[in-house]
Amino acid sequence: MEQATSKRLPEIEFWFEFGSPYSYLSVMRIEDEARRLGVRIGWKPFLLGPILQALGKRPSIEEKERGTYMWQDLARQARKYGLRWVRPSTFPRLGVMPARVALLGAEEPWVGEFCRRVMELNFVLDRDINQAAPLAEILTELDYPGAEIVEAAQAEPIKARLREQTEEARTKGIFGAPNFFVGTEMFWGNDRLDDALALASK
Amino acid sequence: MEQATSKRLPEIEFWFEFGSPYSYLSVMRIEDEARRLGVRIGWKPFLLGPILQALGKRPSIEEKERGTYMWQDLARQARKYGLRWVRPSTFPRLGVMPARVALLGAEEPWVGEFCRRVMELNFVLDRDINQAAPLAEILTELDYPGAEIVEAAQAEPIKARLREQTEEARTKGIFGAPNFFVGTEMFWGNDRLDDALALASK
Repeated sequence: MEQATSKRLPEIEFWFEFGSPYSYLSVMRIEDEARRLGVRIGWKPFLLGPILQALGKRPSIEEKERGTYMWQDLARQARKYGLRWVRPSTFPRLGVMPARVALLGAEEPWVGEFCRRVMELNFVLDRDINQAAPLAEILTELDYPGAEIVEAAQAEPIKARLREQTEEARTKGIFGAPNFFVGTEMFWGNDRLDDALALASK
Repeated sequence: MEQATSKRLPEIEFWFEFGSPYSYLSVMRIEDEARRLGVRIGWKPFLLGPILQALGKRPSIEEKERGTYMWQDLARQARKYGLRWVRPSTFPRLGVMPARVALLGAEEPWVGEFCRRVMELNFVLDRDINQAAPLAEILTELDYPGAEIVEAAQAEPIKARLREQTEEARTKGIFGAPNFFVGTEMFWGNDRLDDALALASK
């Protein structure tokens, strides 16, 4: 029943990367805001690294001037949204394993809370996120069989699906993270979350 | 009297470039919003070209994927703010002459309206902005001696001041346009105008 109802809600596709700090801001915000507007979220974890590589680019934040600015901006934006923020000592952190778990659980009730806790590992607790143990622990704390889920997520079918989803991101014209799609309309960056939700809920 | 009063208002420095489409959005919006919040604007025209050149970069919008997105985003943002929008047939347009005029007039009552009309020449009427005649015409329509002002703005002292102001932009860490400074705090992009004004008016 729940599923049948939620299928009729307007949808926003949310393309995000666990290593991306502006994705952190959106992951923390999106579920509350989407619920308020009656919009369903299609969770679409992907890997930005292979896309940047295909475009022959490095993350903007690694450019000297832009990076200096962006780290200041991130601290300020987190404060604006009432989010905790610690600049990670390792950047960008690999997020392949949590991306696979989030892909496996994209339709599960735990996906939002799982993603938020992984993001907090990276951008609040400054811890490695590409390890089975802390990911399983998050799910166990939420009363799911954490070790089993994480193991299933590292199996070949899910690995292949994450590669496909990343390739789909590239063919959709994605060049950064996060992104929101409403139908074919693309919105890039945490700054466009509100515009995208407004369009979806119209 | 007016001058003495306005000096005591909190100030935002507004660094913009006449060829920059996101600067167009901010130029059209800033005066109304700053007035509403009781914030004084320090108009700081500069040239983005020499800065990008010094950084070894091209405008982001010239990258294929990012450019495709940005032109869509600009049309959508202009609609959101109720602004007219035409993608310029020449991009980026040189804006050296209007930048000199805006620098000469930075403390004059006509600076805001002059900047808006130049931006509309570029991003609504799709016309060349690096010509004396249309710039003089704008000022004449506003009841100022247009030809004289434009001629004075193309003289060596103002040319030198624009070069200095552009160099100052670079040393402040500017790598794009528009930018807002509140004290030493930098905000990049039209998306940060509201945050910058909020800080200035606190």
